[in-house]
Amino acid sequence: MDFDGLFNEQLDVLKDEGNYRIFAELERRCGAFPRARSHDDDAPDEVTVWCSNDYLGMGQNTEVRAAMKRVIDECGAGAGGTRNISGTNHHHKVLEAELADLHGKESALLFTSGYVSNWAALSTLGARLPDAVILSDELNHASMIEGMRHARCQKVIWKHNDPEDLDRKLTALPSNATKIVAFESVYSMDGDICPMQEIVEVAEKHGAMTYLDEVHAVGLYGPRGGGISEREGLADRITLIEGTLGKAYGVVGGYITGSEALCDFVRSFASGFIFTTALPPAVAAGATTSIRHLKASSAERKRQREQVAKLRAALDREGIPHLPNPSHIIPVMIKDPVKCRQIADILMQDYGIYVQPINYPTVPKGTERLRFTPGPLHTDGDIDRLVTALKTLWKQCAIAHQVA
Amino acid sequence: MDFDGLFNEQLDVLKDEGNYRIFAELERRCGAFPRARSHDDDAPDEVTVWCSNDYLGMGQNTEVRAAMKRVIDECGAGAGGTRNISGTNHHHKVLEAELADLHGKESALLFTSGYVSNWAALSTLGARLPDAVILSDELNHASMIEGMRHARCQKVIWKHNDPEDLDRKLTALPSNATKIVAFESVYSMDGDICPMQEIVEVAEKHGAMTYLDEVHAVGLYGPRGGGISEREGLADRITLIEGTLGKAYGVVGGYITGSEALCDFVRSFASGFIFTTALPPAVAAGATTSIRHLKASSAERKRQREQVAKLRAALDREGIPHLPNPSHIIPVMIKDPVKCRQIADILMQDYGIYVQPINYPTVPKGTERLRFTPGPLHTDGDIDRLVTALKTLWKQCAIAHQVA
Ligand SMILES: Cc1ncc(COP(=O)(O)O)c(C=O)c1O
Ligand SMILES: Cc1ncc(COP(=O)(O)O)c(C=O)c1O
Repeated sequence: MDFDGLFNEQLDVLKDEGNYRIFAELERRCGAFPRARSHDDDAPDEVTVWCSNDYLGMGQNTEVRAAMKRVIDECGAGAGGTRNISGTNHHHKVLEAELADLHGKESALLFTSGYVSNWAALSTLGARLPDAVILSDELNHASMIEGMRHARCQKVIWKHNDPEDLDRKLTALPSNATKIVAFESVYSMDGDICPMQEIVEVAEKHGAMTYLDEVHAVGLYGPRGGGISEREGLADRITLIEGTLGKAYGVVGGYITGSEALCDFVRSFASGFIFTTALPPAVAAGATTSIRHLKASSAERKRQREQVAKLRAALDREGIPHLPNPSHIIPVMIKDPVKCRQIADILMQDYGIYVQPINYPTVPKGTERLRFTPGPLHTDGDIDRLVTALKTLWKQCAIAHQVA
Repeated sequence: MDFDGLFNEQLDVLKDEGNYRIFAELERRCGAFPRARSHDDDAPDEVTVWCSNDYLGMGQNTEVRAAMKRVIDECGAGAGGTRNISGTNHHHKVLEAELADLHGKESALLFTSGYVSNWAALSTLGARLPDAVILSDELNHASMIEGMRHARCQKVIWKHNDPEDLDRKLTALPSNATKIVAFESVYSMDGDICPMQEIVEVAEKHGAMTYLDEVHAVGLYGPRGGGISEREGLADRITLIEGTLGKAYGVVGGYITGSEALCDFVRSFASGFIFTTALPPAVAAGATTSIRHLKASSAERKRQREQVAKLRAALDREGIPHLPNPSHIIPVMIKDPVKCRQIADILMQDYGIYVQPINYPTVPKGTERLRFTPGPLHTDGDIDRLVTALKTLWKQCAIAHQVA
């Protein structure tokens, strides 16, 4: 059988649509973030990264790196086993305690990634709780969608960020159902933030559990980086808070926090937690250091907000349309996969500005975009250069008309 | 609603059965593997680990650690994004090339873990290939089972390591089906090895794709550590070889290798690959170094085999029954979850010997066991102390009668 033929057939469809992905091959330059060495032939040797999820540059933080290097030398490169079979290291336990404290919860549970934490936790809750129904915001992340799909319980989709629709959908459910309301705080593609208080109140009214993904908010919002739930003083009213160690904290890994019974339940039953090698102790130590730093320091968050505001203002001045939102994410809509890639290619090749074109399946077809994430390490000069480049491009290509 | 009540109800069942898991909290002592500091109150401060999956002690290899520390300082702590959105680092590409070479394949694709590589690749193949049917060995790992479940295609279970049963099941399928035969080389709980040549021949006869999990074999078998498929000279007849970087290679991460079209297909469509932060570049660099080392050096493999043979012989001498198998894994069957934990507790507390009791759901109920993995760093003295302890225990408890 010609398997490659079958694969190529489906890849050709992607290529024809302009949705075939080409990854930029980079080497981030520690000490010089957001600068990176490019390994792509068409790009300059050094580029400025404008789409990193290492939102605060914690990946180059000296203490974080020192902690990782120290623990590599103390405990070795990897964990050496699953959490159950020889792989639980003291540094995992310290990190879990730190995470529980971050969100004011009894307990926390570490996973190999935010993706796995969502997938494993939601699928375990949905599959094992009696008469479970998961009520999911319609724009929830792929990792939650796959977790729900895996749970094979009843699913109900509610309108994005619409507590009234959620209320209606909850009202329609039988009283014996175990209801789980799943949503995010910051939606990373549009950069909008959920009306958390209203959602929590609706859930409470119906006796529903709340499952909150704070992946794009932890480290970034709240006085200690506890996310939007901390900023709004709502953390203690949310049943489960999920987050990542790979974005604002700059390392890798994911977690859930909640009651001791909840975390113990997921620990004991989730296949995606049980049957996999634990994260390297050094990764746990790096993440702990990063969280502690951002609990104590608001300097990175403050400077990030300033740079975000400056880029927005500059785009406005030049009439370059971007989605308004209250977060740190600045989406510039292009609405065509081929154009989106073309603009990104020109920015990279002619200006050394790297912003990945965001196409399907990350966003719906027809909503292709460039997504800028200014951070504390982008200088005012970086912002000027970006806006000048965009301005030139917008003029040359008269793209503005089509994307308004 | 009393959610904690719901959780505790199901946890209580585990506790009543003796299947509630307690993780040993350790700090492996780099430079002194298999020694680890214990953080458990009931255990001695220093224990000897007898159940690690860092099978060759590569986690403390000096070059591996040096590579990781160097890249932490060059590129930072984490990747800073998904593979598509700013997270592809040069070190990922180098590792993928190394993995393709290891298995003699055109291409390779890196995942955050072996679990995710199995889950994502099998679910993508099963879901997207026309009329796909996955034929799965009945003892396949949880990560493959969850991948198949997720694919929602037709599944057929064949008898463990039985090519004749596979042949019958393939014969019964319609000719238009896209058939995928999924199996492992070394099954980690019994330590048996599949009859690879027969399986491959049956698959070829029926035009079926072969999907091989070499997680417990890579680094350990074959002249360059390419696994059982390398040792048997069969790698080029297998469509997809999957492996981990977290066991014999001592770090963390997973991968698949195969044709360029196959890897590009999974890269382009697998949710579990696309929507997650990439592994830290330092992890990739550490894994590359480890693979290169074990391609060139057979010293670790040779010494491991010697220590495995010594432990087996010593157990035989003392009449302590263990499952015979041709691999590096020595299972001592206890067949009762409560006894299994008790013996492990005594070994830990009285002798400083750490071996995790393996209970449900890792193995079927009634097949509980201790699972010893001797490595090149276990001394002859370690083996003596282990066998003396087991001998004493076997006598004291007269367990031998029940486990024969
Ligand atoms: C909303 C959301 N949840 C979860 C994840 C997964 O987290 P991680 O990258 O740690 O796997 C992501 C992105 O990667 C995300 O955007
Ligand atoms: C057969 C098999 N496949 C896959 C995995 C998962 O690999 P990883 O630990 O890298 O997630 C494991 C164990 O963890 C395994 O035993």
